[in-house]
Amino acid sequence: MNTEWRTYLVTQESRSAGRETAAIAEAALAGGVDAVQLREKGRPARERYELGRRLRDLTADAGVPLIVNDRVDLAAALGADGVHLGQSDLPVGVARERLGDEAIVGVSASTVPEARAAADAGADYLGVGAVYATDTKDVPAETNGVGPERVGAIADAVDLPVVGIGGIDATNAAPVAEAGAAGVAVVSAVTAADDPRAAAAAIREVVDDAR
Amino acid sequence: MNTEWRTYLVTQESRSAGRETAAIAEAALAGGVDAVQLREKGRPARERYELGRRLRDLTADAGVPLIVNDRVDLAAALGADGVHLGQSDLPVGVARERLGDEAIVGVSASTVPEARAAADAGADYLGVGAVYATDTKDVPAETNGVGPERVGAIADAVDLPVVGIGGIDATNAAPVAEAGAAGVAVVSAVTAADDPRAAAAAIREVVDDAR
Repeated sequence: MNTEWRTYLVTQESRSAGRETAAIAEAALAGGVDAVQLREKGRPARERYELGRRLRDLTADAGVPLIVNDRVDLAAALGADGVHLGQSDLPVGVARERLGDEAIVGVSASTVPEARAAADAGADYLGVGAVYATDTKDVPAETNGVGPERVGAIADAVDLPVVGIGGIDATNAAPVAEAGAAGVAVVSAVTAADDPRAAAAAIREVVDDAR
Repeated sequence: MNTEWRTYLVTQESRSAGRETAAIAEAALAGGVDAVQLREKGRPARERYELGRRLRDLTADAGVPLIVNDRVDLAAALGADGVHLGQSDLPVGVARERLGDEAIVGVSASTVPEARAAADAGADYLGVGAVYATDTKDVPAETNGVGPERVGAIADAVDLPVVGIGGIDATNAAPVAEAGAAGVAVVSAVTAADDPRAAAAAIREVVDDAR
């Protein structure tokens, strides 16, 4: 499956200004996001499963892949298109074995060595960040704000699509795409926006123009 | 598989007085525990996977089942015998579908309605607690210290083996078994003991005598 995503929504209901993730996702899909990741860090697996079923329907209707953060079992149970793994999550090979060759396996990488290791392990795309300093995830200080130049270094080093992530919105997405990212992953820039559809569309336009 | 376990070790390296979980598990197996659960709450999936591989070898050598807390994917990847699910984890049916009919699926239940629902959903055994007030897990106040009588009420209400869990050691295990539990699950009473093997053996003897 093509993983050259221009805009990749990563869900987080706790950053959605009191709105439900399914509503945010529906608006973002209307705004043209190419992929949706069920993240929802900190929420119990059961809640993520119930939410994931709604996201599966929404993404299937939109013809867009659904990726599940971290949990391979949840990805399998939902019939998701793949899983996104951090450096402390299960190894790529284990995920691949559980989900099959057709599954999309993405990996978070903050350095060129991490990126090369993920590519060697069979990752389908890389999430690189945090590009701009952010408090969205528990980002270690040394990888919080690696900048577009790191995205470019990694995109040059591996033969995989790279999405930048971390503090990215319409005002600062262009340098990420210009550095060599296929696209950008966004959390708050869409989930917390007054108009998530318009925000997603605006970011997409910036990325399209910059590439 | 028989799930009438007298003593069930639940691992937690953070409560193991600086010793590694694999060493604690090996000692507890020598002391006669009937099952081992890989819990290790708060540790990343990758670390639990690496530890789980060692526990898989140790439990297989001892002819004792290995159960993985919460993560169905980790259980599958390790070739564990089953999974233990809390009320906020994935549903029993989802775990069963991923792991197959032969897998052991245990469920935490603190009330008779929860126990009945788990039995209806196809659980193989129940973990009931916290029997005695404990700070081992994030136990809601209303279920922290339900007492041996609740274990008895649940054992009477469902046709499944019940293990008591929560604050149990050799000094207070007898009332749990007398109330109708098949056995007891233990964390700190073994993991933090000066001699985990002796602690496991002592608890087993108390349960055997009380039944």
